[in-house]
Amino acid sequence: MRVAPAQLDQLLHPVFDAASLKSLQLLTTGIAASPGAAVGRVAFSAEEAVEMAKKSPALLVRKETTPDDIAGMDAAKGILTAIGGKSSHAAVVARGMGRPCIVGAGEISIDEKGRKCTITSGGKTVTVKEGDWLSIDGTTAKVYLGQAKTSEPDTKSGVLAKFMGWADEFRGNFGVRANADIPRDALAARRFGAEGIGLCRTEHMFFAEDRLPFVQAMILAKDVKSRTAALKKLLPMQRSDFAGLFKAMKGYPVVIRTLDPPLHEFLPKREHLMVDLAKLPHATAAEKKEMSKAYSIPVSELKKRLPELLHRVEELHEFNPMLGHRGCRLGITYPEITEMQARAIFEAAAQVAKKGVKVIPEVMIPLIGSVKELEHQKSIVERVAKEVLAKADVSDLHYMIGTMIEIPRAALTADQVAEQAEFFSFGTNDLTQTTMGLSRDDYTKFSRQYEDLKIFAADPFGVLDQTGVGKLVDLAVKLGRKTRPDLEVGICGEHGGEPSSVEFCVKVGMNYVSCSPYRVPIARLAAAQARIGDSAEASRTK
Amino acid sequence: MRVAPAQLDQLLHPVFDAASLKSLQLLTTGIAASPGAAVGRVAFSAEEAVEMAKKSPALLVRKETTPDDIAGMDAAKGILTAIGGKSSHAAVVARGMGRPCIVGAGEISIDEKGRKCTITSGGKTVTVKEGDWLSIDGTTAKVYLGQAKTSEPDTKSGVLAKFMGWADEFRGNFGVRANADIPRDALAARRFGAEGIGLCRTEHMFFAEDRLPFVQAMILAKDVKSRTAALKKLLPMQRSDFAGLFKAMKGYPVVIRTLDPPLHEFLPKREHLMVDLAKLPHATAAEKKEMSKAYSIPVSELKKRLPELLHRVEELHEFNPMLGHRGCRLGITYPEITEMQARAIFEAAAQVAKKGVKVIPEVMIPLIGSVKELEHQKSIVERVAKEVLAKADVSDLHYMIGTMIEIPRAALTADQVAEQAEFFSFGTNDLTQTTMGLSRDDYTKFSRQYEDLKIFAADPFGVLDQTGVGKLVDLAVKLGRKTRPDLEVGICGEHGGEPSSVEFCVKVGMNYVSCSPYRVPIARLAAAQARIGDSAEASRTK
Repeated sequence: MRVAPAQLDQLLHPVFDAASLKSLQLLTTGIAASPGAAVGRVAFSAEEAVEMAKKSPALLVRKETTPDDIAGMDAAKGILTAIGGKSSHAAVVARGMGRPCIVGAGEISIDEKGRKCTITSGGKTVTVKEGDWLSIDGTTAKVYLGQAKTSEPDTKSGVLAKFMGWADEFRGNFGVRANADIPRDALAARRFGAEGIGLCRTEHMFFAEDRLPFVQAMILAKDVKSRTAALKKLLPMQRSDFAGLFKAMKGYPVVIRTLDPPLHEFLPKREHLMVDLAKLPHATAAEKKEMSKAYSIPVSELKKRLPELLHRVEELHEFNPMLGHRGCRLGITYPEITEMQARAIFEAAAQVAKKGVKVIPEVMIPLIGSVKELEHQKSIVERVAKEVLAKADVSDLHYMIGTMIEIPRAALTADQVAEQAEFFSFGTNDLTQTTMGLSRDDYTKFSRQYEDLKIFAADPFGVLDQTGVGKLVDLAVKLGRKTRPDLEVGICGEHGGEPSSVEFCVKVGMNYVSCSPYRVPIARLAAAQARIGDSAEASRTK
Repeated sequence: MRVAPAQLDQLLHPVFDAASLKSLQLLTTGIAASPGAAVGRVAFSAEEAVEMAKKSPALLVRKETTPDDIAGMDAAKGILTAIGGKSSHAAVVARGMGRPCIVGAGEISIDEKGRKCTITSGGKTVTVKEGDWLSIDGTTAKVYLGQAKTSEPDTKSGVLAKFMGWADEFRGNFGVRANADIPRDALAARRFGAEGIGLCRTEHMFFAEDRLPFVQAMILAKDVKSRTAALKKLLPMQRSDFAGLFKAMKGYPVVIRTLDPPLHEFLPKREHLMVDLAKLPHATAAEKKEMSKAYSIPVSELKKRLPELLHRVEELHEFNPMLGHRGCRLGITYPEITEMQARAIFEAAAQVAKKGVKVIPEVMIPLIGSVKELEHQKSIVERVAKEVLAKADVSDLHYMIGTMIEIPRAALTADQVAEQAEFFSFGTNDLTQTTMGLSRDDYTKFSRQYEDLKIFAADPFGVLDQTGVGKLVDLAVKLGRKTRPDLEVGICGEHGGEPSSVEFCVKVGMNYVSCSPYRVPIARLAAAQARIGDSAEASRTK
């Protein structure tokens, strides 16, 4: 009880060798967003980070990151951004990936085209060019020029393992799973003691360089036939991803969420297209070549196809993407997407099960607001599952179909939703956004004033707001179990790895929390301490 | 009980003279969005509609409308859009203004630059140019070429008045107010029997041509001093608006909401700026002149000031404006805005009260999620009110400070919110968006499939979703009254004029509904019928 769960962080991430830091120049300090030390050569774009990482360690430096940058963030050793706060895209994704990350380093001014940045601090200006070495410490938020030495955390001496063993004794049957999208993360999660995957975001696989063209073809398809053709190309890729996860998690459940983000996230940005289209009549050969590369359109066809592409992007443009055509709403308008994903899941499950590995898939439908949406998607998944398993002659495979609870209406009508759902998983990132009417990305614009005035008890995207959002969570657990007493309930939002939120999850009677692999030990300890607290309270009141 | 409240619509709006329609060509049919017949000359932009309306009746024809178009919509006799559904911006605003409106007329293809549109129906294509006459029927959704004759509704024979008198007898003390932003609408509301204003959106006044420059100056201000200077220019304008409303509503309460929309709504669109900036190096003199006009920047300064303007617009750009920096969040980061608005309200109140007119201002803080936000804003309003009333030597003026309940968290913590709020008004448009995680504007993209599959019982933006959103409303009324038994509770969302939703409001114990002036009689009848239903039920169960 004397060890604060967050302290474990120091034992889980690489740290700088103090001596090697002495010779390096401290350039600037930002906001600590994801712990650990990272050293790499600077890349100013996701593409460049991917290229650079093939040869030497890369460090991604961006003004801010967007979903397009996922591959680059994954390839880099660490991430540094000029703007954004602890709940910005960069911060959230980096924590999920276990990458050290500093955000909001406002003294950095990035010239993306010139492939350099300037850092002005204390009257001095330093220019850092692409390929230069930087060392960043995601725990202290300090940025150094040059190459520091890092030492890996000591996970081998057995001290941590022994300590975690004590914690697990008290944690009992309260589970800790990890959010992991690819086999590598799933294996890391197992090493940290995760008892399953609580959230696999299938769309993260869609952003991979070799897949994006097929995803785009699916989106740009003008009819069901050509969409189905594009989906067919994605099927084997998804199948092999899922097979990898099932293998890594042998015997433990794997929660796979069907496609969630709005489709325009997979297409070029509307404003970039508009600007390039405006420039096209006077564009130089070099500029045209760049456009051709950016949009995968031959130079000679730019004039014809750029407006067509923009037209489709305009069609998909949304005023509030967070509240738009995404989650199960996509699966309802394009049932063939859900069908392909269900097929990939169960073909992979059958394939792995036949090798004698126990497989427990839990298919999760996102963004449910009404039980009817779940009913619609569940019937597709069930039909495909039966068909695939019968064809593969696999009969003893146990699977579940459930839903995210991430919209207030789903929580308010959880008794109805539980008629169809075999499990609930609280997506508290989105549930916080909708319950508070507050966009995580946009909150950074005025969060400083809100923090100064102490409007919220803590950053609601870091620490679960128990008074508001928690009330809905508690209500939904109660309503859901009223309909289905054995309903499995977990959480897969960012809060699943935050100690006070984990304690709350234990108290409202959840079965497990799921968090990023690197926070699994923290969650294990926090859950154990919540249980100890509970029994202490119980014995006091006896 | 035999008259469905919606039937009253036929008695409240102008209709086409059947004979005069015979000679006109039916061009196309869209979606009926706001009832009544309108005749006017076509304008393809809001600016043109304003200009045209000075000489002859105008009809605004747009692909879709945005908040920028408010002045043009107001100037036009009717509105016709090519895209959008019953809950699109055009539909909602038109109903609020009582303007006949047809949306989603997909056969219309608009060439805004060429100032014409083509309508292709049944293989035939007709071109309509700016200034041509069109006649639209917002009840049947039919669009005719040419000038039909309209007849005004018969409100003078006294039949309607007599009938409404019967309704009011049964309605008892359940109030019906109107949403009105300007004195003219307030007077219309009184004619229809409104007993006060339930929502005055102060920002609608900000879009007026003579004010927008000052609003923009306020937004572009680099410090508090220059922002305060710009606000000073707006003060007398707001004061005279409010004085007009108080005069029109003599003795009835007027609920005035402080600034609500995100500030970027008042600035040029980001993507337009980006495109124009890309075009600038090769722009012709004519194009530069157009840009100069659009951004109020002299041609010679475009090169310098366009990037500056874009920079500020970028700073204000939001991923999800609906969940962003708006409502009370603006008043908290820029307290001087709330201060100016409070000053305008109470100076106007004092001025009108001194003329012997009874004035009841109710200041409403929007988008509250935590009681602390309300506390912050309330202290500003109270301070200014005391100061202004003392200075004007007005002592017996009764006013209230309350809040919108439009975010789930506000409903969930309504017991806390009521410690500060003297009244609640349910903003069920936004509360529906946040509770369902569904953007009204973006829902139109997939609403057809949702309607076909009957996912929701009815369009949730037209008919209050009693199962989900209604549960939060009911909870908030109970929690609020627990803290403050005499809490005044009303509704000011679109649903306040929809019969089944009005019935719900009566049942959960609200004090009043507020709706667009043209729906006031409908709400009066619906409330009366709800009361009759209640007492019938009560006597049955005796």
